[in-house]
Amino acid sequence: MHIAITGAAGFLGQRLVARLLSRGTLAGQAIRRLTLIDMVEPPVVAADGVEVTRLAMDITEPGRLDPVLATKPDVIYHLAAVVSAAAEADLALGMRVNFDATRVLLEGCHAHGLAGTRLVMASSVAAYGGELPEVVDDMTALQPQNSYGAQKAMSELLINDYSRRGLVDGRVLRLPTIIIRPGRPNAAASSFASSILREPLNGEAAVCPVPSDLSMFVMSPQKVVEALIHGAELAGDALGSFRAFMLPGITVSVAEMLETLRQVAGDEALALVRHEPDPRISAIVSAWPSRFTTRRALELGFRGDGDLREIVDAYLKAEA
Amino acid sequence: MHIAITGAAGFLGQRLVARLLSRGTLAGQAIRRLTLIDMVEPPVVAADGVEVTRLAMDITEPGRLDPVLATKPDVIYHLAAVVSAAAEADLALGMRVNFDATRVLLEGCHAHGLAGTRLVMASSVAAYGGELPEVVDDMTALQPQNSYGAQKAMSELLINDYSRRGLVDGRVLRLPTIIIRPGRPNAAASSFASSILREPLNGEAAVCPVPSDLSMFVMSPQKVVEALIHGAELAGDALGSFRAFMLPGITVSVAEMLETLRQVAGDEALALVRHEPDPRISAIVSAWPSRFTTRRALELGFRGDGDLREIVDAYLKAEA
Ligand SMILES: NC(=O)c1ccc[n+]([C@@H]2O[C@H](COP(=O)([O-])OP(=O)(O)OC[C@H]3O[C@@H](n4cnc5c(N)ncnc54)[C@H](O)[C@@H]3O)[C@@H](O)[C@H]2O)c1
Ligand SMILES: NC(=O)c1ccc[n+]([C@@H]2O[C@H](COP(=O)([O-])OP(=O)(O)OC[C@H]3O[C@@H](n4cnc5c(N)ncnc54)[C@H](O)[C@@H]3O)[C@@H](O)[C@H]2O)c1
Repeated sequence: MHIAITGAAGFLGQRLVARLLSRGTLAGQAIRRLTLIDMVEPPVVAADGVEVTRLAMDITEPGRLDPVLATKPDVIYHLAAVVSAAAEADLALGMRVNFDATRVLLEGCHAHGLAGTRLVMASSVAAYGGELPEVVDDMTALQPQNSYGAQKAMSELLINDYSRRGLVDGRVLRLPTIIIRPGRPNAAASSFASSILREPLNGEAAVCPVPSDLSMFVMSPQKVVEALIHGAELAGDALGSFRAFMLPGITVSVAEMLETLRQVAGDEALALVRHEPDPRISAIVSAWPSRFTTRRALELGFRGDGDLREIVDAYLKAEA
Repeated sequence: MHIAITGAAGFLGQRLVARLLSRGTLAGQAIRRLTLIDMVEPPVVAADGVEVTRLAMDITEPGRLDPVLATKPDVIYHLAAVVSAAAEADLALGMRVNFDATRVLLEGCHAHGLAGTRLVMASSVAAYGGELPEVVDDMTALQPQNSYGAQKAMSELLINDYSRRGLVDGRVLRLPTIIIRPGRPNAAASSFASSILREPLNGEAAVCPVPSDLSMFVMSPQKVVEALIHGAELAGDALGSFRAFMLPGITVSVAEMLETLRQVAGDEALALVRHEPDPRISAIVSAWPSRFTTRRALELGFRGDGDLREIVDAYLKAEA
């Protein structure tokens, strides 16, 4: 089993690599080879008996991926991306990384005869938008209101078409908002959703820029990584007529997040959260749907978090 | 008012040009200039007081459209395309004409500062597919099961994103199956839908390859051309959060088509239709949705045919 990962130095990439190495197998086969690809050199990993290649490259440069594809990986995780704020600030950059790189990868798989290669891509809740129904389901249109979401939606269509034509075996997982991300706040509009839990749990102050009744559709990094694993293990013909679907996140309100924080870490922790409304952030985040039925993902065996408390506990355990 | 049209030598392009010239105005302004673009040289048109430029070019060649965009057309109709069968037979060709050409056009509009230019593109019912609900509405997902539909869906997303960013003023009309096309049968899977009416109306034999209970969502060429006109006349901010929607076709079964034929042209005409089931054609056409609510298009003032009889009468009148 040879696995190649683009964006391997990123948040999910690093966690996926660690999990693959701790499992040792994927789809019932021993992992013999890992090819880690990122713009920044992927960190060294301890990997007994696994041949690990770490490549620093811009995957949007023509031909750069060819030597990797020539080695015929069994599974490719395509996680390289520029996030929503960056794609909104620079349309050409977002198109190149979030769409053209997907296309180059697909054309490369075709050229190298990788019809059986399982290509797993991460899409996003940000691909939804417009006049959404109360509850979003698997047949709700993607009408993205940001360039990142549009680029992800275009990539989904292309992966589905290449898969339908039998040129690759693609599967695209739409990720809910991930909480709790470890580390520091970042420029993402959703950054507060991790911050208002993470910072107080670590005894630090945090700012909540949105009203307490705002709801979000969320998943822990641990469950997202499990979903990436499961996404590669599924048989292609189980996937039916469209290769992209939403993962089973859970719907939580900011009020529930704060109440869970209080239950876990007490009133002192809750008092560390300052409410400072930011209409710009509220506008972006409230446009993302928060209520889904994720029938296809559940039928395919994907599993989300039980409840918010489980997410907080998983964070405390992982970071302890 | 300066209007540029790609695919101007095609079926709809030629009819649109004729209609624009017979109206003389668009969006309340006199048409002063028409730029007709196609791979094959657009036919000469009689146009009093309108400056007509006819350009034979491959619009997918880099830079070819620049001289046209430099003249800052007020309206661009983007109709150039390769149809479904050709796009399915040649993935690279379909991607180039049905998607890359749209992108090049959008990037060109951006580069030439055509933020106010109204860009009208024709998408298709073939962009729908997968596990569709009984009745499709404006928020039903596009999960195309053919490369043509995937390329159209990707173009829709890109036009919407460029419009949302204020780089162009796009609008995309998803066309129902067009009946009755004049002329001869072609390679399109839907060709029979025109043939089984047109040929008997002209005293010729036709083959019906699908079961009589098959339904289709259809529109006459006349109403499609009116919709293209209306699509350019709408104010951009009336279009809301997504720039693509289905036109108000009507749902007709093959049985109704044959019964209308009998009413118009008698039993002798009906007897000219031979039933010869073709599972390949049935499979393709029955995958297209036939029942829609087209609320957005109706609210925006688009109008379809009253009934099938009107479509037949319009054909007889136009071809008489
Ligand atoms: N809920 C969501 O919407 C959501 C959440 C998380 C992740 N995602 C998606 O999951 C994937 C991984 O996300 P993440 O949180 O780990 O992001 P990340 O930003 O931490 O990682 C992305 C990696 O891609 C790399 N990269 C960017 N451009 C590249 C290029 N041209 N060539 C090579 N490498 C390049 C970056 O260096 C980075 O290491 C992304 O596709 C992201 O869009 C979606
Ligand atoms: N129901 C539907 O699905 C449906 C029906 C009709 C039309 N449409 C769409 O409407 C539009 C017009 O359709 P039509 O029936 O007139 O098709 P058509 O094939 O008659 O016309 C398309 C024109 O585009 C031109 N063209 C193709 N590639 C080109 C290139 N690289 N550079 C320049 N010109 C090029 C062709 O020469 C042709 O004249 C198309 O976009 C089509 O996809 C959809």
